[in-house]
Amino acid sequence: MVKTGIEGLDERIGGLLRGRSYLVTGETGTGKTLFSLTFLIQGIRMGEPGIYVLVDEDYDDFVRGANDFGWDVESLISQGMLNVLTLMPDFVERLKNKPANTVVDSIVYGILEETRKIEAKRLVIDPIAPLMVNEGDVAWTREYIKNLIINLEKRIGTTNIIVSEIPTGSTALSRFGVEEFLAAGVFVLGLERVKNTFYRTLFVRKMRWRPVPPDIYVFDIQNGKGIVVKDKLANILRA
Amino acid sequence: MVKTGIEGLDERIGGLLRGRSYLVTGETGTGKTLFSLTFLIQGIRMGEPGIYVLVDEDYDDFVRGANDFGWDVESLISQGMLNVLTLMPDFVERLKNKPANTVVDSIVYGILEETRKIEAKRLVIDPIAPLMVNEGDVAWTREYIKNLIINLEKRIGTTNIIVSEIPTGSTALSRFGVEEFLAAGVFVLGLERVKNTFYRTLFVRKMRWRPVPPDIYVFDIQNGKGIVVKDKLANILRA
Amino acid sequence: MVKTGIEGLDERIGGLLRGRSYLVTGETGTGKTLFSLTFLIQGIRMGEPGIYVLVDEDYDDFVRGANDFGWDVESLISQGMLNVLTLMPDFVERLKNKPANTVVDSIVYGILEETRKIEAKRLVIDPIAPLMVNEGDVAWTREYIKNLIINLEKRIGTTNIIVSEIPTGSTALSRFGVEEFLAAGVFVLGLERVKNTFYRTLFVRKMRWRPVPPDIYVFDIQNGKGIVVKDKLANILRA
Amino acid sequence: MVKTGIEGLDERIGGLLRGRSYLVTGETGTGKTLFSLTFLIQGIRMGEPGIYVLVDEDYDDFVRGANDFGWDVESLISQGMLNVLTLMPDFVERLKNKPANTVVDSIVYGILEETRKIEAKRLVIDPIAPLMVNEGDVAWTREYIKNLIINLEKRIGTTNIIVSEIPTGSTALSRFGVEEFLAAGVFVLGLERVKNTFYRTLFVRKMRWRPVPPDIYVFDIQNGKGIVVKDKLANILRA
Amino acid sequence: MVKTGIEGLDERIGGLLRGRSYLVTGETGTGKTLFSLTFLIQGIRMGEPGIYVLVDEDYDDFVRGANDFGWDVESLISQGMLNVLTLMPDFVERLKNKPANTVVDSIVYGILEETRKIEAKRLVIDPIAPLMVNEGDVAWTREYIKNLIINLEKRIGTTNIIVSEIPTGSTALSRFGVEEFLAAGVFVLGLERVKNTFYRTLFVRKMRWRPVPPDIYVFDIQNGKGIVVKDKLANILRA
Amino acid sequence: MVKTGIEGLDERIGGLLRGRSYLVTGETGTGKTLFSLTFLIQGIRMGEPGIYVLVDEDYDDFVRGANDFGWDVESLISQGMLNVLTLMPDFVERLKNKPANTVVDSIVYGILEETRKIEAKRLVIDPIAPLMVNEGDVAWTREYIKNLIINLEKRIGTTNIIVSEIPTGSTALSRFGVEEFLAAGVFVLGLERVKNTFYRTLFVRKMRWRPVPPDIYVFDIQNGKGIVVKDKLANILRA
Repeated sequence: MVKTGIEGLDERIGGLLRGRSYLVTGETGTGKTLFSLTFLIQGIRMGEPGIYVLVDEDYDDFVRGANDFGWDVESLISQGMLNVLTLMPDFVERLKNKPANTVVDSIVYGILEETRKIEAKRLVIDPIAPLMVNEGDVAWTREYIKNLIINLEKRIGTTNIIVSEIPTGSTALSRFGVEEFLAAGVFVLGLERVKNTFYRTLFVRKMRWRPVPPDIYVFDIQNGKGIVVKDKLANILRA
Repeated sequence: MVKTGIEGLDERIGGLLRGRSYLVTGETGTGKTLFSLTFLIQGIRMGEPGIYVLVDEDYDDFVRGANDFGWDVESLISQGMLNVLTLMPDFVERLKNKPANTVVDSIVYGILEETRKIEAKRLVIDPIAPLMVNEGDVAWTREYIKNLIINLEKRIGTTNIIVSEIPTGSTALSRFGVEEFLAAGVFVLGLERVKNTFYRTLFVRKMRWRPVPPDIYVFDIQNGKGIVVKDKLANILRA
Repeated sequence: MVKTGIEGLDERIGGLLRGRSYLVTGETGTGKTLFSLTFLIQGIRMGEPGIYVLVDEDYDDFVRGANDFGWDVESLISQGMLNVLTLMPDFVERLKNKPANTVVDSIVYGILEETRKIEAKRLVIDPIAPLMVNEGDVAWTREYIKNLIINLEKRIGTTNIIVSEIPTGSTALSRFGVEEFLAAGVFVLGLERVKNTFYRTLFVRKMRWRPVPPDIYVFDIQNGKGIVVKDKLANILRA
Repeated sequence: MVKTGIEGLDERIGGLLRGRSYLVTGETGTGKTLFSLTFLIQGIRMGEPGIYVLVDEDYDDFVRGANDFGWDVESLISQGMLNVLTLMPDFVERLKNKPANTVVDSIVYGILEETRKIEAKRLVIDPIAPLMVNEGDVAWTREYIKNLIINLEKRIGTTNIIVSEIPTGSTALSRFGVEEFLAAGVFVLGLERVKNTFYRTLFVRKMRWRPVPPDIYVFDIQNGKGIVVKDKLANILRA
Repeated sequence: MVKTGIEGLDERIGGLLRGRSYLVTGETGTGKTLFSLTFLIQGIRMGEPGIYVLVDEDYDDFVRGANDFGWDVESLISQGMLNVLTLMPDFVERLKNKPANTVVDSIVYGILEETRKIEAKRLVIDPIAPLMVNEGDVAWTREYIKNLIINLEKRIGTTNIIVSEIPTGSTALSRFGVEEFLAAGVFVLGLERVKNTFYRTLFVRKMRWRPVPPDIYVFDIQNGKGIVVKDKLANILRA
Repeated sequence: MVKTGIEGLDERIGGLLRGRSYLVTGETGTGKTLFSLTFLIQGIRMGEPGIYVLVDEDYDDFVRGANDFGWDVESLISQGMLNVLTLMPDFVERLKNKPANTVVDSIVYGILEETRKIEAKRLVIDPIAPLMVNEGDVAWTREYIKNLIINLEKRIGTTNIIVSEIPTGSTALSRFGVEEFLAAGVFVLGLERVKNTFYRTLFVRKMRWRPVPPDIYVFDIQNGKGIVVKDKLANILRA
């Protein structure tokens, strides 16, 4: 079992299965990136190097944002504990109309090399959407995500978080509707309106082969700490 | 009548019709695989060998997961009481654009042989979706599922559970919308939110030719035991 | 007026118009087949032979299921009071792309002969969906159902029940959306959730040219008896 | 102003504008045909002959149904006070793919002649759907309905009721979505569920150029009388 | 600022911006035509001549309806204070497949001439839908409505009301979904059901560059007066 | 951090990240233009010149409207503190069917020059919709918006507000569904109905890398001041 290191979470879910892939999902602004980076930073504090695969976003913005938030990402990188890879649009563009397994090979090949350099134990891909280069094709999408997860698990061997955006106002669990079936677990981040107040929530929606109750927790975002899970929503509202 | 062996269930539904097919359905993370495997494991404990047809998933992950959960699947296999078959994507791929009965023949042929080896009395197909190789074609789908069920029932003769995923957030009963009409019974697994607490629920939605009341039960997942049906949701909320 | 013979129903609706066609509709598992067979069995007990047209389902399963339920269908058949016809897929397949009236002629011709043999007074077609061989074509569907009903009423002369499945989770009254306009009456079977308990319900949705109030009744399924209508849902919940 | 003659209605709405067209709409089984026929029968009792244009339905069934209901339609016909015209499918079929005004001409021509014979003052077309021979074509539909109404009003001169079915479960006001804009008034018939009881309701949705409040009334169906409007739904529920 | 002259409205919204265009929208039967005509009639009483552009409706019906309602429209026309123009279908038909600005030119040209004759200060187009001759084409529609509004405002200079029908049961603000973005203000007329009573409501949904609160008012329809705004819905329900 | 200068807002959110882009979104009539202009006017008062890019709207109407509202926009322009650019339809039209980066180049080029003239620190684009010249193409749209934001941030360097309209009645966060993922923050303006009263609301939906709670505030529109944020909706309703 792998401890996430996220304050208040491990004592409730017991941790993650080593070498498996978990989905972190939610609408925009619900804290998916912070959740994922907290997972890596806490891993590093426990001695497990990590890789952040930043898809189609600017490296400098990411590093500066994390820094503003209170995480000295650059220092972790120079210590060889963290690596932030960027898969930019021109890389993605070249993969268009290629078969699913070719695309996966290209992505995994690049990641694999970097993973070995720092002996990474944890990996985040954030977000998965721009990698879906043949988006309209459902069969391609299913095969692609399955292959990607299998390759991450069998060839790289890290414990993985895959970030998927839920279109705002939708009741779906993920962008493409297949990620949740293929993941070993699903964390849904949300903004829950109770009367006229919003709570940031973490719903443990699925933990394959694990007797974890499907509870909704309230969490805070704290500078330098990231995600801090407080109590069950039910308890907080009862109090 | 076949006892499912699932704790708390048989006294309520009386069991299943021998040689018929039942649908187990629900969104991701609701316990469909655990329900189905509990059905097989309990059958084995009552002396009925079983076959688990794992569609498009990894054999090792399945066996390790079951093991972590407290079920020594490998030992059951070596005793000749259980068989876990895998229908992997390359097998499925070759069936594309074939007529529905050809596809069914290929699948059933492989299963039939294995069923005879261990004289299986119970069978699970989990999940049915990747077998729907010509997914868009409604007529093909209906004919395919009907043929598959008829062949399982007439040629193999096992009592069957077919697992179907409900897309998250949908009000449908099954992935393709025809499975429920063709099954002899339907069990719907769910996560029911009552205020801010979630309950794992089992809804006995349909039992053909049987005067079983359409009740919703709450169940737990317990390591080594699998599904344990507690009480009616109505009673639990009243308490 | 034709008494349905369903316990608790006739005193409330007064019976059916002789020689007309009624729609029995509902989601899967709501008791449509039991309702229809109760109508035939009770007719036989009142001396009116009946025909059950089983569409695209197995004759043996049907007879065994009815037998398990407590109805000795085979004995009724051998007494010449009941006939169970099956319209199997190969028959249906041959009608594809034929004009609506040709399809109706083929179906009615087969039924007509059998009806005369036992001088049937009641007829059930269960379900109507697989007969819709050109399903996508709305104009064809409307013409087909209208012709079928006219032919049943004008050429065969039985009082008819036509069974139509409502896709689960839909608010429609029937599968094709035209059956209810063409029928002389509509019975909607349902599972009504009141808090956390489900009731089996019968809603008398339409009775053409009859001052029948549009009430919802609760019914039970009893072995050997079939459908037993109890009281209005409103009264039961008030009690 | 034309009195409808429907018991309980005229004192509330003041009557209809002479020579204009009103829409009677509602789901199946809500009483549209009874409403329309009550309008004609009451007109006859006040000395105004009427025409019932029965579209795509059987003349004998209609007459027998009305007779069972307590209205001696045949006697009214033989007295030259009522005429029941039928526009059957073969007539309708021949109009397919013709321009909207040609179709209207054919329909109106047939009606016009009959109207003159009995000097009809009131007219019902029930239902309008099968006349929509080019259903998919929105522009055609709008033009067709507008032309039909203009022709009824300008060339025939009767006060008209046009019956339109609302697909069950829809929130639309009419089948084609344009009828309500073109009519001088709209009566919506419904089945309103209040807790577990259903009320038959009449909603005066629109009365062009008239200060009629948009109220919902409860009505009964009484043999020989037809529609009998009782009180406002609000008053009945308050009582 | 232009006073609408509608009783109870101006003291709440302060009036309209001179020379701008306002949208009056709502489902059928909500009072859009009465609102618009009240605006013109009151303008005339304050010495501002007005033009009513009646699209695809009968001139005689309009004049007779207004007359029945208590407004002597013909006398106002003969005094040169009012003009009722009709854009009939044959005029509209000829514009099909023409570029948006050509269509606008044709419409505006006809209006412009008439506006000058009576030196109109106010103008109503009721309704806008039939003028949308290339309805399916979203880009054309947006460009067309924008051009029409610009031309009305820049070349004619009247203060304008444009009437748009909301399809019944929709949550949209207008028929084409672009009118509300292009108008300087939006008045939504509705029928609001509170328990079992309906209120006629006027919702001031948008007033560009004006600090007008977004309130819902209840209004009456009174013969000879037209729209009479009473109080806020909130106040009326509280009373 | 950049202070917005909007009364009542900065003490709650701490300000915006300098050089990043924020989305202001909401249905028609919710105050998006006022919010954006308040942001520029307050910036000017704090010594930061600003550019308002008015897309497909009339310059004179904008200036007159702002003036009526109490803002002397012309004087600010003549002082070189404000510039109002218009991107009119003919400019937009010429970009059709061009690649996304070509379109972005054309737009940014024009803005860049003007920005330098007055050394603008803040920029508003209102609204973004008409710039989406190849609207149907999702991939084009995503690439276009991403490129536009990157170019504004990297080449121009202003802190930006991008205005996007939410179609009325939709639950989406923005017109094209991708803006919210690409922005550093999202402000949702709304009209919230509580019983029968409407409140103007500002929902801080997303603030990337910032521990800002997702609260809903009530705001007023005041002449000469613009947006004035009052209190949390929850507090106001509790009071």
